[in-house]
Amino acid sequence: MTTQITLIQIDNYGPWTTTPHPRREMDLQTLQSRLFADLAQFIGNRGGYVFFTRFDNMVAVTNGLDHTDHTLLQESINNRYPVTVSFGVGVGEPPLKALENATEGLQDVGSAQEEERTEVLTGEFLTESTSTDVEIAHFDVNDATEKYTDQLNEFDSFIRIEQGYASLMEYIRHEYGGLSFFVGGDNIISVCPTLEQSAYREVVDHVREDVAVELKVGVGRGCSAHEAGYAAKHALEDCRYNQTAVELTVTELPAD
Amino acid sequence: MTTQITLIQIDNYGPWTTTPHPRREMDLQTLQSRLFADLAQFIGNRGGYVFFTRFDNMVAVTNGLDHTDHTLLQESINNRYPVTVSFGVGVGEPPLKALENATEGLQDVGSAQEEERTEVLTGEFLTESTSTDVEIAHFDVNDATEKYTDQLNEFDSFIRIEQGYASLMEYIRHEYGGLSFFVGGDNIISVCPTLEQSAYREVVDHVREDVAVELKVGVGRGCSAHEAGYAAKHALEDCRYNQTAVELTVTELPAD
Amino acid sequence: MTTQITLIQIDNYGPWTTTPHPRREMDLQTLQSRLFADLAQFIGNRGGYVFFTRFDNMVAVTNGLDHTDHTLLQESINNRYPVTVSFGVGVGEPPLKALENATEGLQDVGSAQEEERTEVLTGEFLTESTSTDVEIAHFDVNDATEKYTDQLNEFDSFIRIEQGYASLMEYIRHEYGGLSFFVGGDNIISVCPTLEQSAYREVVDHVREDVAVELKVGVGRGCSAHEAGYAAKHALEDCRYNQTAVELTVTELPAD
Amino acid sequence: MTTQITLIQIDNYGPWTTTPHPRREMDLQTLQSRLFADLAQFIGNRGGYVFFTRFDNMVAVTNGLDHTDHTLLQESINNRYPVTVSFGVGVGEPPLKALENATEGLQDVGSAQEEERTEVLTGEFLTESTSTDVEIAHFDVNDATEKYTDQLNEFDSFIRIEQGYASLMEYIRHEYGGLSFFVGGDNIISVCPTLEQSAYREVVDHVREDVAVELKVGVGRGCSAHEAGYAAKHALEDCRYNQTAVELTVTELPAD
Repeated sequence: MTTQITLIQIDNYGPWTTTPHPRREMDLQTLQSRLFADLAQFIGNRGGYVFFTRFDNMVAVTNGLDHTDHTLLQESINNRYPVTVSFGVGVGEPPLKALENATEGLQDVGSAQEEERTEVLTGEFLTESTSTDVEIAHFDVNDATEKYTDQLNEFDSFIRIEQGYASLMEYIRHEYGGLSFFVGGDNIISVCPTLEQSAYREVVDHVREDVAVELKVGVGRGCSAHEAGYAAKHALEDCRYNQTAVELTVTELPAD
Repeated sequence: MTTQITLIQIDNYGPWTTTPHPRREMDLQTLQSRLFADLAQFIGNRGGYVFFTRFDNMVAVTNGLDHTDHTLLQESINNRYPVTVSFGVGVGEPPLKALENATEGLQDVGSAQEEERTEVLTGEFLTESTSTDVEIAHFDVNDATEKYTDQLNEFDSFIRIEQGYASLMEYIRHEYGGLSFFVGGDNIISVCPTLEQSAYREVVDHVREDVAVELKVGVGRGCSAHEAGYAAKHALEDCRYNQTAVELTVTELPAD
Repeated sequence: MTTQITLIQIDNYGPWTTTPHPRREMDLQTLQSRLFADLAQFIGNRGGYVFFTRFDNMVAVTNGLDHTDHTLLQESINNRYPVTVSFGVGVGEPPLKALENATEGLQDVGSAQEEERTEVLTGEFLTESTSTDVEIAHFDVNDATEKYTDQLNEFDSFIRIEQGYASLMEYIRHEYGGLSFFVGGDNIISVCPTLEQSAYREVVDHVREDVAVELKVGVGRGCSAHEAGYAAKHALEDCRYNQTAVELTVTELPAD
Repeated sequence: MTTQITLIQIDNYGPWTTTPHPRREMDLQTLQSRLFADLAQFIGNRGGYVFFTRFDNMVAVTNGLDHTDHTLLQESINNRYPVTVSFGVGVGEPPLKALENATEGLQDVGSAQEEERTEVLTGEFLTESTSTDVEIAHFDVNDATEKYTDQLNEFDSFIRIEQGYASLMEYIRHEYGGLSFFVGGDNIISVCPTLEQSAYREVVDHVREDVAVELKVGVGRGCSAHEAGYAAKHALEDCRYNQTAVELTVTELPAD
């Protein structure tokens, strides 16, 4: 199990947003979310996953994407956006280690807000991949619609989901070096090292005890984030079907 | 000061994402972020603000947008997306009260996951607006690039920003009934009732003491979210220019 | 009946597409069509129509959009695209006269490929509008699917549609000063001065005799391109319902 | 030299645009142009070219894209749009023959407006490709900005470009079985069989004599539309650099 992580950084973005004067916030929101959508399409239809994270810094699982793919993506964004992006690519285990490598590659060539440091592409790529390269866990909140969305005002629903996410993201990062991302609704996707069912059960227990949010989780392994994540989604459907509050199903896809 | 809030809810979205089988995650991410971008353009170029929140539920400040605007937006999304949206609109003070009204309007007509409950438009609209209707506070993190982005791996940078956001969002919600949203990078935008400079200073102090994240904030008031937010951005620039770790500048725009 | 036309010109676009070296064609196609889509949303949800024409030069019917709307649109594109746009606005009758005025305004301040001539906004705006300001004719080809799409190879279908369009656009321009645009499928939209039913019948006859393409047409009048065009679409549906090869229905919407 | 052509057809689109009542034209324009943009990105970053043609029927050069790529694209559009698409794929020489094959494959399984005929993927794919598979010719109009854009009203400029395009598209189709597409500005891209320089010279001569529009052209060959087209763009730059009204440069890229 080895994860390839790409850190995507908009070059010198902060200063750009206020030069020569502050830009309309809704235009910035549009720019950021459309850039993310384009990355999601390019990376996603090559089997990767990308998470919006802070929008000016985004984290992608890029097993299966090589140097040429990254170059092409960089060029295409340059051709269509008023900003450019740099990529740091890292390989390692657990995923946090891969991200550390990816981040260091970018940091070594200059600050995120250095005017001259644009369109960097640095780092190390996986040379081959096996059918068990990536592990993806897909969490959601039990009865989120019934307990939160249909009961609380939307901000308090959001606070509950955020609290669950904060508890989970820190626990998985510190215990296992996994990277967890909120992906909308009541869904969290974690990029993990190989973990036993018991580890996931502990995560769910921890979040319940810590912030009283009830999670369930499906886990998958595959040769790409999509294959692992797709298996994870099916496993999560099994949780729903079996009406169990917590059920972990580890599905392993054959290499194709 | 009266805020008009629109709760935007994708109709029956959760079930749609797994019917007839789970849909590719990167397609869902693309759909969600592009829908948000379109909302940001429509609402934004009428002076409003919209926040992605949970993406299936989004919160907008819609002072200046009337029933006709909402109807047109709903129709346009129906024409261009595979999903539809419902709107609950609420008016009140503080903003949390407006959101409560907006949410209740939607909850009263059915669950967010009811198949038949589609394209609802319910609630109450502001009938007139004055030059001081909305108060927007724009926070950012001091030296985020130097202290986090250029030093830590991106996930740990993100955790720090998230911790600052979590601390701030809960404090402002419970103390003042304000609604705070992470908008990317190290930026948080709060929709607030009328608050004194001292209140904002307490917020900044609270976050520093709670999670050791140093914020600064610019505050603006105006007849729309954009006008208030734009004044807030300028005030935040003043903070930067004056090289003060914490400086609150309340700018008031004349009605135009 | 007075039409307000906006000529939208991407500033110095030709040179940009090959600087410093030719850009990938599919990136240019993406940029152009997304820029057009954003214009269609902004102008369209204010009641206007925009046509892609040559993509680097686009023609819009902007009755109902004032100077502030144009300024905001220009700023928003600047914030989100790697290119900027200039606007020439003209008022007149027939529509060709309005476009001549719009074009001259831009030509007078410099060439479309002058580096310094960026983000121009020039021309004259309608000061008030009545319920019969705009006349829109919506044409389509009779049995295009059965006769062309399902029978010929797609290029030959396209040639037939193009021949119909070429014949119609030149005839309406020279006879009446109307502006006709292909809008996809087998649809053509014409922005016309006030014309009798007999004039439209002559157009349809001309195209049949000239290139053997059978058209039908619905015509509408309204205080905006959308209102007129929407009435025209309903009139065209009447043509279909009545199973007549050629039927002209002039619908007039009440002012709202 | 063998071209693989994909005919992309929006399923049952005409009826959808008027059901249950006519949809807003600017929403349809937005939908069509964004769908085209997404196709341009997906196909383009795999080395293909796609042309908007009639928008409800689009023609793509897909050398290098296999059955799996087409399936993935079809699924992704289904996930994100309110409409679905069918693909007919054909191989042959000249390109018109490939398109005939592609079109027949779709026509054989039902009408473009049959409700049940959705998401078809039919036809034949190239099994291997060589470095000279595709020939692309990139035409533009000499001094279009000086002679047309900066002199005439935009509609008359457009008419001149359209006349040049109409003359060229029909000539190349009938003489050589090549497919020519207007791509914006004063640019036309032709997908051709292997042609001598003299043939291109005749094309340019024909258009001048037929409609008095002066063209120049760069031609490239490559193992994909992008490689051939990119060589063609460079050849066209050579025309500009050499200040010749008509210069044909055939550049051949090495296989990579």
